[in-house]
This record gives sequence, C-alpha cells and structure tokens, in this order.
Amino acid sequence: MAPVKNTSVKEERKEWARAQRQERIIGMAAQLLAKCDIEEITLEDVAKSSGYTIQNLYQYFKNKDDLFAAVLLKKLKVMYADAESAVERTTLGIDRIITLGDKYVDFCLRNKRYFDLQMHFERKFCAYHKLTAKKTRGDFIVQCQGVIDQVSDLAIDAIKSGIEDRSIKTHLKPLHLMLLLWAQMLGVIQVITMRQRYFKEIYELTSEKFRRDFKDSIQAYLSSGQGK
Amino acid sequence: MAPVKNTSVKEERKEWARAQRQERIIGMAAQLLAKCDIEEITLEDVAKSSGYTIQNLYQYFKNKDDLFAAVLLKKLKVMYADAESAVERTTLGIDRIITLGDKYVDFCLRNKRYFDLQMHFERKFCAYHKLTAKKTRGDFIVQCQGVIDQVSDLAIDAIKSGIEDRSIKTHLKPLHLMLLLWAQMLGVIQVITMRQRYFKEIYELTSEKFRRDFKDSIQAYLSSGQGK
Repeated sequence: MAPVKNTSVKEERKEWARAQRQERIIGMAAQLLAKCDIEEITLEDVAKSSGYTIQNLYQYFKNKDDLFAAVLLKKLKVMYADAESAVERTTLGIDRIITLGDKYVDFCLRNKRYFDLQMHFERKFCAYHKLTAKKTRGDFIVQCQGVIDQVSDLAIDAIKSGIEDRSIKTHLKPLHLMLLLWAQMLGVIQVITMRQRYFKEIYELTSEKFRRDFKDSIQAYLSSGQGK
Repeated sequence: MAPVKNTSVKEERKEWARAQRQERIIGMAAQLLAKCDIEEITLEDVAKSSGYTIQNLYQYFKNKDDLFAAVLLKKLKVMYADAESAVERTTLGIDRIITLGDKYVDFCLRNKRYFDLQMHFERKFCAYHKLTAKKTRGDFIVQCQGVIDQVSDLAIDAIKSGIEDRSIKTHLKPLHLMLLLWAQMLGVIQVITMRQRYFKEIYELTSEKFRRDFKDSIQAYLSSGQGK
C-alpha cells in the first residue's frame, strides 16, 4: 500500500472546510434576503448573523454583490433544471417556448426578491448573452451570467425547433426573437408585482388571467407569421 | 370706480410670489436630476442650490417624493399634449394605439431619469387607473397619477375605436388590453436602457430595429384576432 500523502489530505480537508464556511455565509445572506431588500442589507449584517468578521467575508467573496450573486446562483440553477426538464416533456417548438416562459414567470413571481436581485445585476453589470466575462466582476456574478445564458440558449433552441416544425412563424433571428419575448415578459412580471394588489379592485382582473392574456398574445403572434 | 381692495391685491401678490418660489425649487430639482439619480439627491442639495432652507422647502412640498413628482408632472404634461396631438392625426384605431405607444417609448428613452422616476412612484405608490387619490400622498403625486390616467384613457379610447373600425381584433376588455400593452412596452423600454450599449456587439441589433420588431409584433397580435 502506498503511503498516505498527509499534506494532500490536509489540503483537501482545508478546502472542504472553506467550502462549508462559504456555504454557511451564503445561507445566512439568503435568510436575510427573505426578510428585506438587498439595499437594506449590509455586509456587516451578514457577518454578524453568521458569526464572522467582515474581513473573514472578504476571504470568500469579492464584495456584497458577489455574495448576493452566490445567493441568486443557487436559485437560478434550480430554475434552469426545472425549465430544462419541463421543456423535455414538450414536442412542438411553440409549446417549448411557451413552457419556458411560464417557468420563468413562475420563478420570478414566486421569488420576488430574487427577481429584484436579477434586475439589480442586470442594471449594474448588464449580463449579456455570451459576453466574455469581465475580470473586474465577482466570480459569482460571472457564474449567474452563465446560467442566464444557458436559459437563453434553451429559449433560442425552442424557437429554432419551432421554426423547423412550423409551429412558429417569424422573420426574426432566433436570438432577436428571444430578446423580444424576454423583454415583454419582464414588463408583465413587473406590472404584476407592482399592481397585483389592486388588480381586482381597479381592473376586475386576476394575475392568473393577466398571465393567460399575455400567453395568448404571444401564442397568437408566434403562430400568425405576421409582423412583416 | 370702486375702491381697490388693497388686501386682496396683497393676497394675490403673495400667492404669485409663492408660486414663483415653488417654480424655482422645481426647476432646481430638475437641474439636479439631469445630473444624478433621485436616490443620490437629498432635500438639502435642493435647498442649498436654490438658496432656501429645508424648512422653507417643506412649505411648498410635503416631502422629497412630492417635490420630484412636481418635476415629473411637468414632463408628463408635455408628453400627454404631444401624444394627444399625434393621435388626432391618425384615423384607424390600430394606428392610434401604435402611435401612442411610439410616443410613450420615445418619451421614456429620451428622458431616462424621468422614466426611472415614474417607475420609482409606480413601485412606491402604485398609481392606478382611476384609483381614488389617497390623502396621505403628496399633491403632486396625485396630479402625476391624474396625467397617467389621462394617457391611459387615450389608449383605451384608441383601442375602443380600433374595435369599432375593425382594425383591432380582440376578445379582451379595452382596459385589460391597455394594461397588457403597457406592460410589454415597459419591458421593452427597460431592456433597451439596460442592454442598449451592447446591442451591436452581442446581438447585432440596434435599438431602432428592436423597437420596430416590437411594434410589428404588437401590430400582428392586434390585427390577427387570434389568442382566443
């Protein structure tokens, strides 16, 4: 039997302990985020609640945005896995893109603060489709961007397959159509989160009905082949 | 000749001077807003730059939001007048609603900080269609809401006339269709403001092309009569 390399086991144990601590901090930040908006949370709050100092935190995250990107990343990965498996159960391209949209809207409405986080990073770092990661950004922001690109690719593939099986009629490039659909979806999500409370009183509307109206409008647009 | 009522002239002069001062403060706040976001501006900044104390400011505005609502109100009124006259030059209902959308997108893109202001009030006060003004809000916020309701009414009228002249085919109530179109438009405006810088590099797209794609998609949806 070869002699056990004590140093490498030690290294491995250190790496494991480091990862455990990082996880603990991410979990604490997620708990704080369940209670208040990111703007209201300081690194000090996270340090205090997890029993570390701010200096400790900086050993694991580049800055506050990097830490909260790690929080978002976990949720994004779950959303991606969910969307991917839902898409596998569809056959027509148009059903695939509609299902994807549904999953995304579900995710954003059920996780309002995570949607806000996403928008926060969008505004601040502009996570673009396949834009080479800038070194100045934290690692977790780059990773979030990666997952968002994966989701975008699912949407682009769905559109391509819809064009092929003729369930989607469009003159737009799949990438451009994806961006347009995502934009419209963002607006719908925001109007629901901003005005939902008064939907019934003012509009005699429910958010379910509003989502259905939106879905119908997209379905009509994609299958009509109009919009020269 | 009746004797001049000195007291009433005095009152009128006081009222005039008060309005002048209020205008001065609104103008100063607008100038600051041209340079930075509302979150970065304090009432103290506005007081300093207009030569008043914060106490003075409170004689004219309930709070910071009320002051910036006064700033927004001026722009909104101009936008409304512009939209109204543009609509008068159209005949078909579908052209009216498309023209209105165009004017609104123009306004928001050309006045990015005013768009942000609008969203700020939306999130905070939820200005709803015809929701009775709450007394706790500042006067100017209520007035902004009034102008936004006027714009919404223009859109609803355009949809109604489109249904009548058969250029718009829909099974939705005009109020609901208006809300849906507005939501989609908000998303498109946001994606343009957030990602425009990289449109060319990443998407081989211009914001003009993106707006056109959006317009085409709405036109296709409204005239297709699909979306059961």
